[in-house]
Amino acid sequence: MSTEPYRLSATQASAKIRAGDLTVEEYARSLLSRIEQRDPVVKAWEYINPDQVIARARELDAIPPEKRGPLHGVAVAVKDVIYTKDMPTQHGSPIYAGDAPKVDAGSIIVLRQAGALILGKTTTTEFAATVRGPKTVNPHDTSRTPGGSSSGSGAAVGDFQAPIALGTQTGGSTIRPGSFNGIYALKPTWNSISREGQKIYSLILDTLGFFARSVEDLQLMADVFDLQDDEAPKPDFSVKGAKFALIKTMVWPQAGPGTQSAIAKATELLRKHGAEVDEVDFAPDLRDLPAWHGTVLHSDGRPSFLPDYRAAKDQLDEFLASHVDNTNKISRAAQLEAFDNIAMARPRVDKMLGEYDAVLVPSVVDEAPVGTASTGSAAFNGLWTALHVPVVNIPGFKGPNGMPVGVSLVAPRYHDRHLLTVSKAVGEIFEAEGGWKSAL
Amino acid sequence: MSTEPYRLSATQASAKIRAGDLTVEEYARSLLSRIEQRDPVVKAWEYINPDQVIARARELDAIPPEKRGPLHGVAVAVKDVIYTKDMPTQHGSPIYAGDAPKVDAGSIIVLRQAGALILGKTTTTEFAATVRGPKTVNPHDTSRTPGGSSSGSGAAVGDFQAPIALGTQTGGSTIRPGSFNGIYALKPTWNSISREGQKIYSLILDTLGFFARSVEDLQLMADVFDLQDDEAPKPDFSVKGAKFALIKTMVWPQAGPGTQSAIAKATELLRKHGAEVDEVDFAPDLRDLPAWHGTVLHSDGRPSFLPDYRAAKDQLDEFLASHVDNTNKISRAAQLEAFDNIAMARPRVDKMLGEYDAVLVPSVVDEAPVGTASTGSAAFNGLWTALHVPVVNIPGFKGPNGMPVGVSLVAPRYHDRHLLTVSKAVGEIFEAEGGWKSAL
Repeated sequence: MSTEPYRLSATQASAKIRAGDLTVEEYARSLLSRIEQRDPVVKAWEYINPDQVIARARELDAIPPEKRGPLHGVAVAVKDVIYTKDMPTQHGSPIYAGDAPKVDAGSIIVLRQAGALILGKTTTTEFAATVRGPKTVNPHDTSRTPGGSSSGSGAAVGDFQAPIALGTQTGGSTIRPGSFNGIYALKPTWNSISREGQKIYSLILDTLGFFARSVEDLQLMADVFDLQDDEAPKPDFSVKGAKFALIKTMVWPQAGPGTQSAIAKATELLRKHGAEVDEVDFAPDLRDLPAWHGTVLHSDGRPSFLPDYRAAKDQLDEFLASHVDNTNKISRAAQLEAFDNIAMARPRVDKMLGEYDAVLVPSVVDEAPVGTASTGSAAFNGLWTALHVPVVNIPGFKGPNGMPVGVSLVAPRYHDRHLLTVSKAVGEIFEAEGGWKSAL
Repeated sequence: MSTEPYRLSATQASAKIRAGDLTVEEYARSLLSRIEQRDPVVKAWEYINPDQVIARARELDAIPPEKRGPLHGVAVAVKDVIYTKDMPTQHGSPIYAGDAPKVDAGSIIVLRQAGALILGKTTTTEFAATVRGPKTVNPHDTSRTPGGSSSGSGAAVGDFQAPIALGTQTGGSTIRPGSFNGIYALKPTWNSISREGQKIYSLILDTLGFFARSVEDLQLMADVFDLQDDEAPKPDFSVKGAKFALIKTMVWPQAGPGTQSAIAKATELLRKHGAEVDEVDFAPDLRDLPAWHGTVLHSDGRPSFLPDYRAAKDQLDEFLASHVDNTNKISRAAQLEAFDNIAMARPRVDKMLGEYDAVLVPSVVDEAPVGTASTGSAAFNGLWTALHVPVVNIPGFKGPNGMPVGVSLVAPRYHDRHLLTVSKAVGEIFEAEGGWKSAL
């Protein structure tokens, strides 16, 4: 018996559709049946309309082969802080309940032009800016959070309800759910993809990202969004003979047993496969990077949430209202010092990262915690978000409770394609030998 | 006979409405009659619906005094790259002709919550990103451009068709039309006001700005948008005894006779009124700031215009398509070097500017050129936009053809309130003695 279409990666589904072995409608029906079966438990969707999906799938099937785009029929789930012309966009906020602006985000225009099938909108914490969980649970253990703020996107891809999902990251909102759901996640270089039509928290931090169950699928997204390094990545990259660094970072004291063992195992596997792995300290004078990230985040939230604060303060999460009120009393001088210090750190850290094929860093504090009240800590992510560098979460390890734990590879800014090439080779090893397999 | 309401500043109109001497409807009718009379010539509006304006004015008049906002009845024109829920938003682009997403930009939410009367949408160059002029002409000489990209906003305020208008600036799109139309313009500190719902060209450069015919009106906007310095500005600021710098900048060789004489006269007037004015050189190692600005602009346009390029390349201005194609072959390394060099210059330039009460710099190359094919040069503006500092255009001078020429005052980042206080005192002198008066 052949694999159920919903289990295919985007690349696999695309190849079958191209070969005429699968129609977009058949593919959509398979995904919708998976969603119908699992949604009552996982609750990854804020909005999905099966009739609309089928109608669009039929339209795509009617396009003659020579006019089909590179993502023809590829199904994509969209985090509900990204505008979609034909579906509501509600930002996980009661202020925008039922709101449906007739506009597509830049990313959605690119996806539609490439022939993607937009499935629906996935849950998010309020404005992708709090850690208060939506209703979504972790598909691998429904007593646990799927992470956030891209909760529904991470859960949907982990649960085979979509092959690809859009997320966003301002702190750790793409890499954390990637790790918690046992999937790949790419936070590309800041501003390498248009954030037009994506709700703003912080202009200098917010980054559109992707979830997938394979690196090839992330590469497919990188192709469609025209991510280009200065030099094309080496097609023959091999872990054998490659040079990695392990940077535990200043946040390491927060690492729990799942992350401690994942990082140790990852290092061991890279060495076993012939790579050099140097343990490197983060520049000591940059130890306040996480604090600078927090200062920028809070002070950027001040103008960003002023409109919603003025319109409906009583319906705005108190954490976000506190940005507008500047409850932390962050002075302009302190705000600018944090902003400028991060800016000055970027070229230095690029240089440090550039000495290696990639740098191994923790993705999360530990496996997904129990409960959905909090989506967990982004402690290990904020500094890389602030530094604008590309980050890929690679799954394969497990925590004390058998939940997935990922590790990240990072590279200098605009080395996204290179990083994906390295992540592909590394991911094959970690998935095969890391010790965690999806039971879904 | 009392002044026609359309001639009032926002502050004056607001006071009359508050005192019960003017209804919002009367005020709106006066503005609409001015617009009806002048629009066939000036062509500042992309969209205006008099019935809608009157209906909204009546709603505002029906609000009981104790529930009225700080901008109750104040009329505002909105550049057509900013989303308005109840009016089309067309970005000066054929791709978006007739498009009307049902969403308000963050700035519009703030204005509506404060009780403003949104009049309509003003013309812009395509996506506020080219210098190809829209149909709008300069109200002071209809053979000349009003500047751009905020063409309609500058012309409408200069021509008494609106007391306040929203503009945006990525290069010089607020300060240039301010100077060309003989009005005040504020480009505040970058990201001090939400750019949610404002079409993106460059995340690190785009800045929402304001046009008005008085500094008090700019201060009214600064109040509503909650612009706050660390220290409240001195209410008793006087030009007498104040310390200014004149920085002609590396762009000075491009200055035409109108700007040369305006800068000379401005310096003379400040000294005559008891201020010290030191002529200061810009840091020689920052002479490439305008080139870095250009590099960031072009490379940021690459992701920004990819969606429109994919959707309708044939309807996209070739200059913007060239960003996506990276026709200038800007490498990622060059892009990051420009981005990082500007970032490292910001705290240095803040420090330099902070040694003075304000720094006098040119606003424009010269008075508005003849014709509407080009909206003119932003040569003097890009560096300040890149540096994120607040800039105020102050009118009062005239060029060889009797057209208005402004000069700018700049201050360190987040000294917007201070800069407005200084600009008010300086503006009174320049308007009284600079030699240009509006004949409108």
